[in-house]
Amino acid sequence: MADSDTEGIQMDDAMLERLADLVVGVGANVRPGQVVTVGTEPGKEPLTRAIAASAYRHGAKFVDVSTFDLHVKRARIELSREEDLAYVPDWYRQRVLDLGEMRGARIALSGPVEPTLFEGLDPKRLGLDQLPFVPEGMKVVNERTVNWCVAPCPSESWARYVHPDLPPQEAVARLDEQLVHIMRLDADDPGEAWRARVEAIAGAAAALNARRFDAIRLRGPGTDLRVGLLPSSQWTGGAMDTVDGITHIANLPTEEVFTAPDPTRVDGEVRATKPLVLGGTTIEGLRVRFEGGRAVSFQADKGGAVLEATAARDEGAARLGELALVDREGRIGPLDTVFYDTLLDENAASHVALGAAYELCVTDDSDKARLNRSDIHIDFMIGGPDVDVDGVLADGTEVPVLRDGAWQV
Amino acid sequence: MADSDTEGIQMDDAMLERLADLVVGVGANVRPGQVVTVGTEPGKEPLTRAIAASAYRHGAKFVDVSTFDLHVKRARIELSREEDLAYVPDWYRQRVLDLGEMRGARIALSGPVEPTLFEGLDPKRLGLDQLPFVPEGMKVVNERTVNWCVAPCPSESWARYVHPDLPPQEAVARLDEQLVHIMRLDADDPGEAWRARVEAIAGAAAALNARRFDAIRLRGPGTDLRVGLLPSSQWTGGAMDTVDGITHIANLPTEEVFTAPDPTRVDGEVRATKPLVLGGTTIEGLRVRFEGGRAVSFQADKGGAVLEATAARDEGAARLGELALVDREGRIGPLDTVFYDTLLDENAASHVALGAAYELCVTDDSDKARLNRSDIHIDFMIGGPDVDVDGVLADGTEVPVLRDGAWQV
Repeated sequence: MADSDTEGIQMDDAMLERLADLVVGVGANVRPGQVVTVGTEPGKEPLTRAIAASAYRHGAKFVDVSTFDLHVKRARIELSREEDLAYVPDWYRQRVLDLGEMRGARIALSGPVEPTLFEGLDPKRLGLDQLPFVPEGMKVVNERTVNWCVAPCPSESWARYVHPDLPPQEAVARLDEQLVHIMRLDADDPGEAWRARVEAIAGAAAALNARRFDAIRLRGPGTDLRVGLLPSSQWTGGAMDTVDGITHIANLPTEEVFTAPDPTRVDGEVRATKPLVLGGTTIEGLRVRFEGGRAVSFQADKGGAVLEATAARDEGAARLGELALVDREGRIGPLDTVFYDTLLDENAASHVALGAAYELCVTDDSDKARLNRSDIHIDFMIGGPDVDVDGVLADGTEVPVLRDGAWQV
Repeated sequence: MADSDTEGIQMDDAMLERLADLVVGVGANVRPGQVVTVGTEPGKEPLTRAIAASAYRHGAKFVDVSTFDLHVKRARIELSREEDLAYVPDWYRQRVLDLGEMRGARIALSGPVEPTLFEGLDPKRLGLDQLPFVPEGMKVVNERTVNWCVAPCPSESWARYVHPDLPPQEAVARLDEQLVHIMRLDADDPGEAWRARVEAIAGAAAALNARRFDAIRLRGPGTDLRVGLLPSSQWTGGAMDTVDGITHIANLPTEEVFTAPDPTRVDGEVRATKPLVLGGTTIEGLRVRFEGGRAVSFQADKGGAVLEATAARDEGAARLGELALVDREGRIGPLDTVFYDTLLDENAASHVALGAAYELCVTDDSDKARLNRSDIHIDFMIGGPDVDVDGVLADGTEVPVLRDGAWQV
């Protein structure tokens, strides 16, 4: 349910421009002279164009829009020879690496336009093709050479998927309202509102860092998971800086504090508290069991085989690269809506990610070498009001961290 | 007017697939294992997807769709710093060059979705930005390393622009009918129909080559233009082969025989017989005067300044790189429709192109060095039933070549 403030506030052209200016000016914080890449898909033209215009107004040297069409990917999965499915032309990688070298900016638009398009496709074949993601993307993130932002883009098909019980027009109006609220576009100055929020998140990260937990334990219905941390695992959240000191907010919205786990010390069972959309596949009712850091069993009511196939991609794909905690102070959780969009859903609930870790989550070089490495990074949601989170100290003492979604540290 | 054959034949999904199979299998002639790039724009998703699927069915290793959004370009022209307007990221060039090196295939979709989007933009600024075209594209064409095809893509906005007097639905139906007819999709085997047609075109080219004209003279209302040829200028048309012997039809439809002129020997006045859409600009009533090979004056009822600015881009941009003759046997001319799409309109009428010449149009290396070079290649239509075309022999004798659109050679 949206605030009374935002009720009736629609994503008209003026609001879309406000969203674009937030993403460009505050999220990615595009600097004059930067080349800006924008990752989008068919059905997201209005916001894509508003973002391009905003980037040029912010002084961008060039805006390079790249449109990834899941229908074309579906044709590939259905029709290509299997030995070609992992192939990626060099220029896909080069574009990502060149952007880092030239110290450019990157914007990507989430919000699934086709959340069920991949139903019925062979999960094994799907697991072989990770596009539009290329591993070089994580390399550039770790090198912190690019200021970047991922933000949600409204679309009619997404609205209908999130609110199937409403007539289409009302579904669109409801999702628009929710996005205006979540993105704080209803604030007098959305940028200021986000600067305040990311400071609060950074404060929670600092409080967690002060405790130097050895592990985190999550317990709730279907979940009892212990996630070991590395000696120098660092909780982080909110804004971040490039190597050149450009402060940006890599996810808008962002409500999480996150760190990198010890990829060899994750044990127990975990039940996903929200569905997960992976490309054109919706995964529901996911249960995963970990032993010695490795996911040894995947079960799901729907779509589980796709995640299992993806987790078989490389050695690190079945291990955790991220643990993130989310409190109930954010604006997404209270809406009690499943958005089928990882960016929004992961900021409504504590989560873990299979695959690559972020290097900024550890401070020691010896720990950097121990971080999980993989070509994938897939978040799924495991937290919520029912899930207690404890910190485990080196001596085994367990200290409450989150209860009913409220910080205890 | 469409044939009675094709009247009522619509571009439904089955017909779109037939078109896609023609473009992929006969036009580009995609070979198993090839990487295929597809150049498209928003609003062309149905045919783009059908082409991607067809390419995979033909054994493509990977289909790389690149979507160029003229709205984003418009934002750039309006808002970017002028000194940045000619900038192109390296990966745009690299993709084109890499495709040549790997002996890939290329498909591009014509058919203007936004023929008036650039109205009111500064022509000088527009002339600085030639994207989505990069000069490396012509290099790869000249090296004949890529089998390629440009073909028209139906869209509602294009149909409404071509048939403004019809109600929108009828406009769409009319353009669909015309495209089915022009693309010979109404033939039992469209591929066979095209193979027969390109043989006939090659025959006309051979007949012209046998005459070894020193120049071509075009005379009609507002037109008296003499276009000198190089000693080894070769008329060509129909299908062509890559260096690896892959036979492809680079334009579908194709009705022209073309050659490369002597860029220093073009003199006289010429009046365009059809409008020309350049990106998002429609140019109407164009008159150009040439002296010593160089276009020294551009006048137009509409949009002329954009062409003039483009022709100022580099030394070769104001000189001719192509002369093409079109008879009335083709299927486009008799429709008596202005399509505002160079691919269709240039195959309805004899035309010239400002800018780069094709190397395959001369046989001697010394003539290759004399060919016009430029970053641009812009065709405009100067022929029609009212325009007489004569060949000028070395001794000055003039020989009829086209009268009322019929070959005299």
